[in-house]
Amino acid sequence: MNIANKLIEFAFGEKDLPVNAAHILNLSILDWVSVSLSGVSEPVSKIVRECFLEEGGHPEAFVLGSNKKAPSRLAALINGTTSHALDYDDTHFASLGHPSVAVMPAALAISDRVGSDLMAFKRASLIGMEVATRVGIWLGRGHYRKGFHVTATAGTFGATVAASLLLGLNERQFKMALGLAASRAAGIKAQFGTMGKPFHAGTAASNGVEVSLLAYRGFVSSEDGFGGPQGFGHTHDTEDNTTVFDTLGSKYIFEGVSHKFHACCHGLHAGMEALIELRNKNSVKPKDVEEIEIIVHPQYLNVCNILSPETGLETKFSYRFTAAMVMHGIDTARLESFSDISCRDFALTETCNKVLVRTDSSLSETSAKVSLVTKSGESLTNDYDLAKLINPAMREAKVLAKSNSLLGKNRTKEIWSYIATEQVNPMPVSQALFDYS
Amino acid sequence: MNIANKLIEFAFGEKDLPVNAAHILNLSILDWVSVSLSGVSEPVSKIVRECFLEEGGHPEAFVLGSNKKAPSRLAALINGTTSHALDYDDTHFASLGHPSVAVMPAALAISDRVGSDLMAFKRASLIGMEVATRVGIWLGRGHYRKGFHVTATAGTFGATVAASLLLGLNERQFKMALGLAASRAAGIKAQFGTMGKPFHAGTAASNGVEVSLLAYRGFVSSEDGFGGPQGFGHTHDTEDNTTVFDTLGSKYIFEGVSHKFHACCHGLHAGMEALIELRNKNSVKPKDVEEIEIIVHPQYLNVCNILSPETGLETKFSYRFTAAMVMHGIDTARLESFSDISCRDFALTETCNKVLVRTDSSLSETSAKVSLVTKSGESLTNDYDLAKLINPAMREAKVLAKSNSLLGKNRTKEIWSYIATEQVNPMPVSQALFDYS
Repeated sequence: MNIANKLIEFAFGEKDLPVNAAHILNLSILDWVSVSLSGVSEPVSKIVRECFLEEGGHPEAFVLGSNKKAPSRLAALINGTTSHALDYDDTHFASLGHPSVAVMPAALAISDRVGSDLMAFKRASLIGMEVATRVGIWLGRGHYRKGFHVTATAGTFGATVAASLLLGLNERQFKMALGLAASRAAGIKAQFGTMGKPFHAGTAASNGVEVSLLAYRGFVSSEDGFGGPQGFGHTHDTEDNTTVFDTLGSKYIFEGVSHKFHACCHGLHAGMEALIELRNKNSVKPKDVEEIEIIVHPQYLNVCNILSPETGLETKFSYRFTAAMVMHGIDTARLESFSDISCRDFALTETCNKVLVRTDSSLSETSAKVSLVTKSGESLTNDYDLAKLINPAMREAKVLAKSNSLLGKNRTKEIWSYIATEQVNPMPVSQALFDYS
Repeated sequence: MNIANKLIEFAFGEKDLPVNAAHILNLSILDWVSVSLSGVSEPVSKIVRECFLEEGGHPEAFVLGSNKKAPSRLAALINGTTSHALDYDDTHFASLGHPSVAVMPAALAISDRVGSDLMAFKRASLIGMEVATRVGIWLGRGHYRKGFHVTATAGTFGATVAASLLLGLNERQFKMALGLAASRAAGIKAQFGTMGKPFHAGTAASNGVEVSLLAYRGFVSSEDGFGGPQGFGHTHDTEDNTTVFDTLGSKYIFEGVSHKFHACCHGLHAGMEALIELRNKNSVKPKDVEEIEIIVHPQYLNVCNILSPETGLETKFSYRFTAAMVMHGIDTARLESFSDISCRDFALTETCNKVLVRTDSSLSETSAKVSLVTKSGESLTNDYDLAKLINPAMREAKVLAKSNSLLGKNRTKEIWSYIATEQVNPMPVSQALFDYS
């Protein structure tokens, strides 16, 4: 059986969503809405939005940052880019991709186009994100190391699955959509650090919408453009981990997705979490601190170890400064907390100057150790590993807190009530999630 | 100097087009117009046109097969697909790509958008096609053999150059457009034999328009997404023939482009040309033929050796039947000549049954030998190599004859008068080439 057939069998076979997967999905939806709305003023969001809204067209699907609808292919392009603009969305470390920003904008665009409700959107999104995750693992480390951006490549297939489900494609059309997606999936890591990176999320989403609409019209593509000869996997250096598809339908690998709880470089997060736990457990105040030591994997030293940041952007790449922010109880989920002004705050810089950073290559890339010596000579230690999944209730509390920081409590509460309910809600998806009607 | 810089220096440096290159370009423009107009009723053209015209949007650029204009990104997508639908357009054997169908739809879309005249369209097209050709050679045989479709990949860069020139991008914007093109250029050979193949020409053209419009707005992409680390070349298995860029500006490799003069599989053309020459030189009539032998490279045997075709489509892949058509003086440039009815024509099938096909692996892939024994026992031989360029005047006569067959003499004469003139013609490009205003 070719891989496309396995994906289609899975997509058509899933009726009821497993409870835990559905819960993590709900958190990812809320998280996606929060970071999307927070990203609308970023330069890349404005450029893509203004450039393509200029095209005009029929008002099919909601466009983030505008008070407009646009053709669904276009809405997906703008919304995908906008939702990845801050790089504050979820990450799946096993597949090395960002699933929500590629899949959900495609699902939203088609939901708005065909009038799907939130339940259909959720189902298509979950199945699409599971496919994006598995395809990312199938492509493997070699694909990523060579320079392909998994969010763009695997993301296109996930977006295609979500869009095709919501369009109601039959099996033949579904296969043609996946076959054609193999000719549109693209994106290279040379774009990291540029607007090209968030744009990849937009192109993945838009590709999924495009190929699904064409398949619906009868477009004929390669039967096995995905895994077959001269197909996507072969040309794009898949490691061909085909066993990853064996458990499709029996468990959701997507559940292992990580949400970002601090609006700064991911390399800082393990150390920050370790320090937050240590601070809370021992009720340490900034004035009690004699010295803090953070120990991390050496690969991060040239990524996020700016010793004395002078701008808000630089604080997002500073172990020392973010440790000080943690000790002073600053809300690191808020974008505004990372400001130019904070760099000149006397109390913060004083604490910052008490922090040392060391490396230990025996640590995993996702973990960190911290030790804190108090003025009274007490020595406290803690460690944290981002790969260790936190329990669902705690994860929910953290995602809701992040959303509270970004959107405010009232809006978060309202959206969450729509997302978390199992009641049928006939409200259009863009109305429920973005208050747009 | 990185490759993008070389391309930009070339694009900005070319002011006057060399006479011979400009002549071949004119032929390619006429040829592109002819095959594009002839392809509008193909199923893939209809599907892509209907699917995306439904998006609506501002009437910026002419759309083939409709009486409408559409946003330029969209027009390029539809027009590129339509112009490659018949697979009857030009081919560059050194780069293994189809340059006109990727580049000209992008140039047309932006010309219509900004109101460029035919001279600006020609200049941008020629420079874009030279870039597409050189990038194809830079990517090399390994890229193609792995499964990448050069028309789609190299074509995207050519389309980007043409669109960026017509939009008037400055050097910085131009570089950003090329950098972003590296994340959109995609297309795999698994699509050969499906609608996916012509769609690649559309996506290449549309990608070029898209990234140029974004760069114009200030989009920031990778400075060296083309040839740099984790860039397009590295990820897409370039053979890195960088010397191919050394002669940019001093000669046009594009001039080696081949036009297709028979509306059938390219593998048949060398044999048909050899037989046409032999027939004309010796005034052989069908009734004089005792036996015809066609000798070709063995790679074509499983491509175009249908012995007794039963449909018009099958006649396009038959050495024996096309040899019979040649002997009966049927116009093989016309699409309608390859019909279901012709398969049942008694005289044609009688001649068809006198043709033998043999292989010789010492022949090049672009050549064929024919021998013909007459009823009177005379033995005639000839050979032909498509790689051998024909002189410009003869080439012009052949392209004009093809256009006469496809569009009629009056329309051909009118379009050619616009294309071939060196006078400034303020008429919009879509009006001059497609009589659309």
